[in-house]
Amino acid sequence: MRDTILEKAAGLFAARGFCGISLDEIASAAAVNRGVLIELFCDEETLYEAVLEDQFGHYAAAMQAALEGNKLPAAKIQLFAQAFFDLHKQTPYFFPLFYRELLNPSRFFESIVKKNIRRVAYLSDNNIARGIQKGTFKYEIHPANATMLLVGMFHYHFLSQQLIDTLLPTHGNAEDYFQQALQIFLTGITRSAATK
Amino acid sequence: MRDTILEKAAGLFAARGFCGISLDEIASAAAVNRGVLIELFCDEETLYEAVLEDQFGHYAAAMQAALEGNKLPAAKIQLFAQAFFDLHKQTPYFFPLFYRELLNPSRFFESIVKKNIRRVAYLSDNNIARGIQKGTFKYEIHPANATMLLVGMFHYHFLSQQLIDTLLPTHGNAEDYFQQALQIFLTGITRSAATK
Repeated sequence: MRDTILEKAAGLFAARGFCGISLDEIASAAAVNRGVLIELFCDEETLYEAVLEDQFGHYAAAMQAALEGNKLPAAKIQLFAQAFFDLHKQTPYFFPLFYRELLNPSRFFESIVKKNIRRVAYLSDNNIARGIQKGTFKYEIHPANATMLLVGMFHYHFLSQQLIDTLLPTHGNAEDYFQQALQIFLTGITRSAATK
Repeated sequence: MRDTILEKAAGLFAARGFCGISLDEIASAAAVNRGVLIELFCDEETLYEAVLEDQFGHYAAAMQAALEGNKLPAAKIQLFAQAFFDLHKQTPYFFPLFYRELLNPSRFFESIVKKNIRRVAYLSDNNIARGIQKGTFKYEIHPANATMLLVGMFHYHFLSQQLIDTLLPTHGNAEDYFQQALQIFLTGITRSAATK
């Protein structure tokens, strides 16, 4: 029951933000009574905190899994991008919750949002730094800039879902965008054969 | 007086969204009385519409100016990116207003937001298509994908201002990020000398 409540609450908070949702609406969506919600989560803010912990914990774990192991840095970037992209399909509430926190930080911004985003950024920075050391990526690339660029290429794509039909060609699709963006990024950061 | 009201209202809507702001707060911020607001703008929704018209009109005009003239496609991309980046400093309310519309579309989403974003995307797509025809950019690049990538590289950077100090190195700055992102993008879409 806890999982159902977290899932329904995440959907409502993602759609309308923390301030736009009442405990009664969440109880109704999860088909439980208000008393059960209060017993399990105390109040709406504590429930919101549990939703963020769940969503950001899942995000950080998925991204970390993509960057672990012994693969080469460029292969890890591919896995990282693929995991990021898959997450958008598998946990559709994560990204709107994140964008809402960026526009209106709650009091969990530091303890949950920032902590998990920083953890993922740190792992990606390290992977890119390793690629520079190995001579695969250009020396002048700054790992933190490259990480921000890599995720930024996809964040706007997710954020602008409302616009996608007008902005992208009717025959294109999300997978095309994903492959092309990743290809441009990898070509842009990789040292050319001539300068190696 | 109209301009002052539009500017103050834009700041409040950018910070807290259309639903988070009352007409009294706008009157107080603009140092006019409520009667003046109603005389000039009728009601809060009409004032919000005027703010969007003003902000999105300014955005589209600035981007259009960057893409006009006889420069080469790659030079126009540089001007476009620079104009986009400058706008973030000059009209800081535009981007939060845009992101809020993407998360919670108002009834002006189609008539103002979509119309202006599409206009800019169309001009940028044409510029990239011209670069492909001229043999500067790779044949396999899809103009609409490349445009989305180009703006996406900067949108997340603006959206994540709250996180920047944790994600980017202390010695880096916005200008470094801007130059590096643009360089990676241009390298990624440009045909290499060997294949020309």
